[in-house]
Amino acid sequence: MPTTESWLLIDPASHFSLANIPFGIISTPTDSTPRPAVAIGNYALDLHLFAREGGFALLSPFESHAQSVFNARTLNAFAALGRSVHKEVRKYLQEIFCRETPYPSVLKTNEELKKKALIPLKDVQNHLPLEIGDYTDFFAGKNHAYNIGVLFRGKNNALQPNYVHLPVAYHGRASSVVVSGTALRRPSGQILFDTKTNPAAPKFSPCMKLDIELELGMFICKGNDLGSPIDVNSAEQNIFGYVLMNDWSARDIQMFEYIPLGPFNAKNFGTTISPWVVLADTLAPFATHGIKNDTTLQKYLQEERTDSALDINLQVDITTSKGYTTTITRTNAKNLVWSWPQMIAHHSISGCSLRTGDLFGSGTISGTEPKSQGSLLEQIQGGTVPMKLEGDEERKFLEDGDTITIKGWSGEEGSLVGFGECSGTILPAVRFD
Amino acid sequence: MPTTESWLLIDPASHFSLANIPFGIISTPTDSTPRPAVAIGNYALDLHLFAREGGFALLSPFESHAQSVFNARTLNAFAALGRSVHKEVRKYLQEIFCRETPYPSVLKTNEELKKKALIPLKDVQNHLPLEIGDYTDFFAGKNHAYNIGVLFRGKNNALQPNYVHLPVAYHGRASSVVVSGTALRRPSGQILFDTKTNPAAPKFSPCMKLDIELELGMFICKGNDLGSPIDVNSAEQNIFGYVLMNDWSARDIQMFEYIPLGPFNAKNFGTTISPWVVLADTLAPFATHGIKNDTTLQKYLQEERTDSALDINLQVDITTSKGYTTTITRTNAKNLVWSWPQMIAHHSISGCSLRTGDLFGSGTISGTEPKSQGSLLEQIQGGTVPMKLEGDEERKFLEDGDTITIKGWSGEEGSLVGFGECSGTILPAVRFD
Repeated sequence: MPTTESWLLIDPASHFSLANIPFGIISTPTDSTPRPAVAIGNYALDLHLFAREGGFALLSPFESHAQSVFNARTLNAFAALGRSVHKEVRKYLQEIFCRETPYPSVLKTNEELKKKALIPLKDVQNHLPLEIGDYTDFFAGKNHAYNIGVLFRGKNNALQPNYVHLPVAYHGRASSVVVSGTALRRPSGQILFDTKTNPAAPKFSPCMKLDIELELGMFICKGNDLGSPIDVNSAEQNIFGYVLMNDWSARDIQMFEYIPLGPFNAKNFGTTISPWVVLADTLAPFATHGIKNDTTLQKYLQEERTDSALDINLQVDITTSKGYTTTITRTNAKNLVWSWPQMIAHHSISGCSLRTGDLFGSGTISGTEPKSQGSLLEQIQGGTVPMKLEGDEERKFLEDGDTITIKGWSGEEGSLVGFGECSGTILPAVRFD
Repeated sequence: MPTTESWLLIDPASHFSLANIPFGIISTPTDSTPRPAVAIGNYALDLHLFAREGGFALLSPFESHAQSVFNARTLNAFAALGRSVHKEVRKYLQEIFCRETPYPSVLKTNEELKKKALIPLKDVQNHLPLEIGDYTDFFAGKNHAYNIGVLFRGKNNALQPNYVHLPVAYHGRASSVVVSGTALRRPSGQILFDTKTNPAAPKFSPCMKLDIELELGMFICKGNDLGSPIDVNSAEQNIFGYVLMNDWSARDIQMFEYIPLGPFNAKNFGTTISPWVVLADTLAPFATHGIKNDTTLQKYLQEERTDSALDINLQVDITTSKGYTTTITRTNAKNLVWSWPQMIAHHSISGCSLRTGDLFGSGTISGTEPKSQGSLLEQIQGGTVPMKLEGDEERKFLEDGDTITIKGWSGEEGSLVGFGECSGTILPAVRFD
């Protein structure tokens, strides 16, 4: 099936080609109830309406589920049906939109349903695609871990001894995960401004070192019971799909708070994800090799396949309040030393239960080339070298009014598998008078 | 109102006196649907049934809410109504059970309803009282933090520089919080057995240093919007109530994994809480002073009141598989250097949103006397001195088949405000062959 060939006009540059079919949650000015949808070209197909109007009548046995899972405010119920169902539903929707669709009466020639169920993306409000149970942020971007380690501890001790043995991670804050487009306030907290002369006298201040972290996010579709670890070689069945993620970070707040229990307020003021979940099956053709790990791994981390990284182009743009946009990062999601199945296996090896809707972050993704780093801290070499931006501006860390937009895509024009955007603007800090 | 005087026979030693009225979620052999209840004496009052049969008809305007909030599988909807409602409902239920109740026909003389709605606690299955959004574990037990610090870094550097400036915390794992009575498997993970000769060669093994952490848990009733911190002096209004907590800890897994992002698999295999939530109002008469903090605090942590710690007696018992029980810890919940309002204020100062059902742990509560420490690690002085137990046994860390039971109570016999039990048994590790 030539995936560009839809009866719907799809721009070849669209992230939402017929090869994609990502799932999300939308509302519209005329119907504020959040409901499931897929993105295709410049449109969202309202799945609640499509299901209600019999759109899945030809897809038994899913048809019996469709009414309930798409009559929901999140994708959790759909995700929980498992990967074989996701695959089947995506394939069916691809057939529906195919120029030579075997089922033209379902949508192609059904003018009334097209008019109601196909909504221009510009008229759509996106919501969080799933209700997130727990959010876990990994640290699998080895180049980033190394770069940060060099800045703090020097080249010889850049990576901690555990780094190559297990996917280091911490539990993040699910309540503060927001969908692309949500503005975030600059956080305030306790900061050491003068670490040399007065190492234990923090001041309360708005964050002065507000940073980004370019990450890939992954949603769990199927969980495990407490006490029953997930095998690394079956863990792909637990993956619903992927989103882009910006794990905003307050470096100065983190510096004072993080020993010994890890980052807390430095991260929990907001984490932004892109709205459309690209299904695991959709990205299967883009499997590739990640960063090689020379360590002999414990058996529970040994994967049979060696290509479970994902070849996804990533780009970070900054738009300042003056309106100039500069691309500051170009890299690829394959720059991870741990795969998603390894992260799942490690997370559950203790017996920890995962649940439908749990969100994993990859950790910051950085390449090794100039301008391929996923955080400002790396790009400005710890704060010593400002970035030059369009409009004759420069930046070390983020200023109020700055907008960060992450884009990600795999494949070629005409059949792009893209994520759309993960975007957020920084508002001034709350005033405490 | 002499709180012992109920028409219901209540043992003076009962944790669930008329002065208490804690809320929980129950099911029964004849009705497996989880539903809200309060505990009183040896009984649970089924609030779903009580509300359906008009039990709250005399309590307007709550009556209009009662049908829906008690026709739920968790206490979230009830909690979200706010503290003035919790207070009013508790007071009304106290009046219903009072010997000289002004409303005898509601329950006291209503034999049919009594028979249906009052269920012996021995016939009740408890469930998690709330659906937990996020779980955050603090580190406010200063004596514990100091004792652990001495073991790892010596007396002079026992507390990290940030410790007295802010309530250190990490995000925990909500999915693995279980209700008292749930058995937990011993976790497995990567452990350094020989740190001196081979510091970077972990082995995969069942945890050999399985420990407990005696904590108090707190549930949030009312949250805040992202970007809108909660004022420390109004934060009591965000507290629904309290439970006992055992934050089981795999010390050896933690030792290898926790730098730089904090504990992960060492904690996420299970956290046990007691089933009955003792309301914030119920514990108000037991306000007391916590551990004094001599540091000049940032304004956002400065409380007007100085007695916002809680005077709750705490006890930890171990029962081995041979059936002998030994009390290993007696202490008090006032052994915290940060109050719950301070924890709330700090958690949200970055803008982090709290939600109804979020759970906070206090951190391990230890006294300064012998046998008052809330972890085994402290009691065995880092692993050097075994504890002597009944039945001629001894322990360093937990063995398979050991049961840990935490009890907690305030007040005097006849009007005890108690939590019942927080109990869990360790099952053998999963076998990986």
